[in-house]
Amino acid sequence: MYPEKISETSKGVYIIAATPFTDSGELDLDSCDSLTDFYLDKGVTGFTILGMMGEAPKLTEAETLAVMDRVLGRIDGRVPVVVGVSHASNRHVERLAKTAMDQGAAGVMLAPVANLKTDEQVYHYFATMARLLGPDIPICLQDFPQVTGVHMSVGVILQLIDDFPQVVMLKHEDFPGMRKLSELRTQSADAGRRRISILVGNGGLFLPQEMLRGADGAMTGFAYPEMLVQACALFDQGRADEAEDLYNLYLPLLRHEFQYGLGLALRKETLRRRGAIRSAYVRRPGPVLGAIDMAELGRLIERQAQALRERGL
Amino acid sequence: MYPEKISETSKGVYIIAATPFTDSGELDLDSCDSLTDFYLDKGVTGFTILGMMGEAPKLTEAETLAVMDRVLGRIDGRVPVVVGVSHASNRHVERLAKTAMDQGAAGVMLAPVANLKTDEQVYHYFATMARLLGPDIPICLQDFPQVTGVHMSVGVILQLIDDFPQVVMLKHEDFPGMRKLSELRTQSADAGRRRISILVGNGGLFLPQEMLRGADGAMTGFAYPEMLVQACALFDQGRADEAEDLYNLYLPLLRHEFQYGLGLALRKETLRRRGAIRSAYVRRPGPVLGAIDMAELGRLIERQAQALRERGL
Amino acid sequence: MYPEKISETSKGVYIIAATPFTDSGELDLDSCDSLTDFYLDKGVTGFTILGMMGEAPKLTEAETLAVMDRVLGRIDGRVPVVVGVSHASNRHVERLAKTAMDQGAAGVMLAPVANLKTDEQVYHYFATMARLLGPDIPICLQDFPQVTGVHMSVGVILQLIDDFPQVVMLKHEDFPGMRKLSELRTQSADAGRRRISILVGNGGLFLPQEMLRGADGAMTGFAYPEMLVQACALFDQGRADEAEDLYNLYLPLLRHEFQYGLGLALRKETLRRRGAIRSAYVRRPGPVLGAIDMAELGRLIERQAQALRERGL
Amino acid sequence: MYPEKISETSKGVYIIAATPFTDSGELDLDSCDSLTDFYLDKGVTGFTILGMMGEAPKLTEAETLAVMDRVLGRIDGRVPVVVGVSHASNRHVERLAKTAMDQGAAGVMLAPVANLKTDEQVYHYFATMARLLGPDIPICLQDFPQVTGVHMSVGVILQLIDDFPQVVMLKHEDFPGMRKLSELRTQSADAGRRRISILVGNGGLFLPQEMLRGADGAMTGFAYPEMLVQACALFDQGRADEAEDLYNLYLPLLRHEFQYGLGLALRKETLRRRGAIRSAYVRRPGPVLGAIDMAELGRLIERQAQALRERGL
Repeated sequence: MYPEKISETSKGVYIIAATPFTDSGELDLDSCDSLTDFYLDKGVTGFTILGMMGEAPKLTEAETLAVMDRVLGRIDGRVPVVVGVSHASNRHVERLAKTAMDQGAAGVMLAPVANLKTDEQVYHYFATMARLLGPDIPICLQDFPQVTGVHMSVGVILQLIDDFPQVVMLKHEDFPGMRKLSELRTQSADAGRRRISILVGNGGLFLPQEMLRGADGAMTGFAYPEMLVQACALFDQGRADEAEDLYNLYLPLLRHEFQYGLGLALRKETLRRRGAIRSAYVRRPGPVLGAIDMAELGRLIERQAQALRERGL
Repeated sequence: MYPEKISETSKGVYIIAATPFTDSGELDLDSCDSLTDFYLDKGVTGFTILGMMGEAPKLTEAETLAVMDRVLGRIDGRVPVVVGVSHASNRHVERLAKTAMDQGAAGVMLAPVANLKTDEQVYHYFATMARLLGPDIPICLQDFPQVTGVHMSVGVILQLIDDFPQVVMLKHEDFPGMRKLSELRTQSADAGRRRISILVGNGGLFLPQEMLRGADGAMTGFAYPEMLVQACALFDQGRADEAEDLYNLYLPLLRHEFQYGLGLALRKETLRRRGAIRSAYVRRPGPVLGAIDMAELGRLIERQAQALRERGL
Repeated sequence: MYPEKISETSKGVYIIAATPFTDSGELDLDSCDSLTDFYLDKGVTGFTILGMMGEAPKLTEAETLAVMDRVLGRIDGRVPVVVGVSHASNRHVERLAKTAMDQGAAGVMLAPVANLKTDEQVYHYFATMARLLGPDIPICLQDFPQVTGVHMSVGVILQLIDDFPQVVMLKHEDFPGMRKLSELRTQSADAGRRRISILVGNGGLFLPQEMLRGADGAMTGFAYPEMLVQACALFDQGRADEAEDLYNLYLPLLRHEFQYGLGLALRKETLRRRGAIRSAYVRRPGPVLGAIDMAELGRLIERQAQALRERGL
Repeated sequence: MYPEKISETSKGVYIIAATPFTDSGELDLDSCDSLTDFYLDKGVTGFTILGMMGEAPKLTEAETLAVMDRVLGRIDGRVPVVVGVSHASNRHVERLAKTAMDQGAAGVMLAPVANLKTDEQVYHYFATMARLLGPDIPICLQDFPQVTGVHMSVGVILQLIDDFPQVVMLKHEDFPGMRKLSELRTQSADAGRRRISILVGNGGLFLPQEMLRGADGAMTGFAYPEMLVQACALFDQGRADEAEDLYNLYLPLLRHEFQYGLGLALRKETLRRRGAIRSAYVRRPGPVLGAIDMAELGRLIERQAQALRERGL
């Protein structure tokens, strides 16, 4: 069953899915299934697989295809799946994107290659890729300069929206980036431009403020997706204060996961504790949690559970 | 009246003091006074003036001396004052540090110059400076790689502690940096080393976790220093859960101030709203808050006030 | 005597002047004189003082003014002098630029502040500064991303040329940057734009190719300015092969000076050996030449002299 | 036929081999053969394949294995071949290195992954990899911070030499890096350490000076390898001035190839003009030479030929 493709009207929570390994670092496809079920059970609107948080650069091509096949098969069209296709070679991006779409993906996510420096260079890269992928593959632009080193201006993003109808979504995770989000919405509205979907990343650290500035949801991997789902739904209903009250109960742990690099290990360990995957293994080189990290995480999880209980949640 | 110098046993909250300007960008020495009084009134343990957050690189030398003179005079020895002396030229650091100490500073804070790449280079820089300043000027090392671009390893910090008794304090704001803090404490204890004071920066975004990992307090500029003061006191009394409960009430706003660059404008505006300074002006080039930023800040302040009221605080 | 200001038609060699110190690091104003005379004697077209190579960030404001006063006084209007005014604070840039012009400078050179990321941000910075300095102060843009971290696109530079008549010169030292130079010339000509003066930096490592691509001369500090002067004159006369033959005789040493950071120490030592200054001291932190460095430099100087002798030069 | 593995006594010229493509970007294995023959014909001591200059990050795994197989088969043990194995995943490095050695490689070259910041982190990475690869795979460390962003201190390199006998070679291309080379040699000799092979990269821009400072040869891809071979042989015979005289005849073109990024396109085009490969295609995103670039390159090649003719070479 093929789902709808992503589009300008996509909203809600696209969970950035972890890629599970065994304790010895082999791909764990059974945990792929259980993790997929876990996310679906928490009510996510969609998935994003094979992103940075999915350790995509550490998979072989065979593993990449195996993960894609397994997750898409498990979901079986129930929700849309965006596939991360960022790579140093244009040919690779093209091949992976076409394979993903053939297998039922709802769209692809693409970050810029390193070393793009000026607006013109950034525009040229994405324009080239949009032409290469063609009009039928919906693209989610990933704007994450803290990791890519590439800065995408409001002007470049708007120009890409104008020139390529297949650019339908932005994963917004510039930091600080809230004013950029507002500028995108304002300049777009002022010029009568096509309004695309903006989902926020950065671990959701500014989700409430970003929803109020015009975001359509979240594309992040917080290990408690049920909160993201509920909060986004409340925002969508105009119940901002309720949404933020809920969000704030999870903020201490969400902020804890925000730690670049280490955050992935914390997130996988939390997912393991929640029964979603069997091992929290992160491929090397990568962070390994020590005893203090484990105790600290446990304390924060317990405090969060306590806070929820106190409010009858 | 000369206060005690800072030492290995310093703890509590050293507030990173803003430098107030008028709306036209002139130094506002009257607001220096009112801001100093505000911080003292909130119970801070000490001050750090003329740091990055104090816009030191945008002051003339005359202005630098005027601020130092005014704040030290106003405090008049009631609490210790650390003076930021980081500069591209060793001669300048030396001159400024000696002037500060002559006027009653309790110590100096020093960040590494840019372009130090290896452990040896970082060690050599601080060793040179420690010798230049001599044994009588207590030094607080500022470890803030997100801004300086310089990474200080645990090994280098410990070696500096071993070799220079005047290194008595670390402003810890590497990010993610909590494991570094733990390693510093563990490796120091294991080797029977001198234990120095560690105060945390980074806006206090991980303060509770850092206190539990062995920090002695905070050196940051959150616009509600009274929370920092209370929380650190509670941690000091072993009442970690109470401390963190209090902290979490302020976390949404504290996280909001965490935005690099923009955070200074938000902080000054909050201080202005609290009556501590007359103008929120930040010297150019620098961030200017727009209508959306102002409304958003106001909403977060009001929500925080509401949360405090609900708990009878 | 006031010289002509720099303009779109400026060409030739604007020497980046070193700032001489004594062996103990004090400003050496006598060597300022002798170095100024040395440069004039070698036939330079103009001077650029208080740039990065002039260790401007390590001077006090009093020293900055003393150097400006001394050099401008010594030159006394015989050739134009560009003054570097780059600084973290707009107010400082404005004050320094106005002082320089009042004292007879021919224009100012301005590099972008750090942390400008997109075309819009870069444009906005220079537009703000151009308005602040007003129409009567000619500006030389310094495009040196290897040091500033800021990338100036062709589009931004052209827009600044269109919008601000006082932008009359570009110090071109992006690397690799030759295609940018060609694009600037081509896009400017195609659009019937004002053609500004482009002088090349980067130690002159690609001077012959850049002259053929449309540069008007060099703004660099090679310790043998007489070669730069002769080569640029030959290029100006259309005698490119002769110019490059001459240039190539100096290329081994010129390339040796190209080493970032260390190059300044090598350059000052060469100037000292040529009798232009008394001490090769570089302010700390800064490179110090060791015995191997000194012997190596000596060998390259001797080989260059030998090569010149062999050709009867 | 299996060649000797690389060792501490390796010297001479290890050519960094380009990876040839057709004009449409497909792997061109016939040109792999002709290029291999070209390099062998010019007398290179060894090869380094699948490095950054070999566009390794843009090859699929199948292509990687195809290139390795083709080049190793063509050389058939006549000279040693180092295989680049750098990758974001340790598992990938291990797999590729073992495959390479099984097929007759003489050793592997390994650059650090991104984001290693301190001496301890860099040491830990290479120590982990050395243990993973085991004592039988000789390792060439690649020290190229301009591209990797990782700085390897002299102390770390020496420690790796002490702890891992399989670390037998350093590709030295820090810049400026000559003093580092001298420090490595001096500190190693002073402590009676194992002396490893040091081959210089960075396009050979400082080859003569580096040979005099103790380098054993070059590992770079200059399109005129015959000069590198002759110059290194002359240096090895103590005929430094002759070596440098020869080198200087090629310096203008060598410097031209030094342009990061663009240099690969210039090098491939030069190899194409010399008949070594059929197409100068560089995989996208990547530099494409324009008409001005082509004419400029042609002029430099002709000038070099002229200079050689004038000297009867």
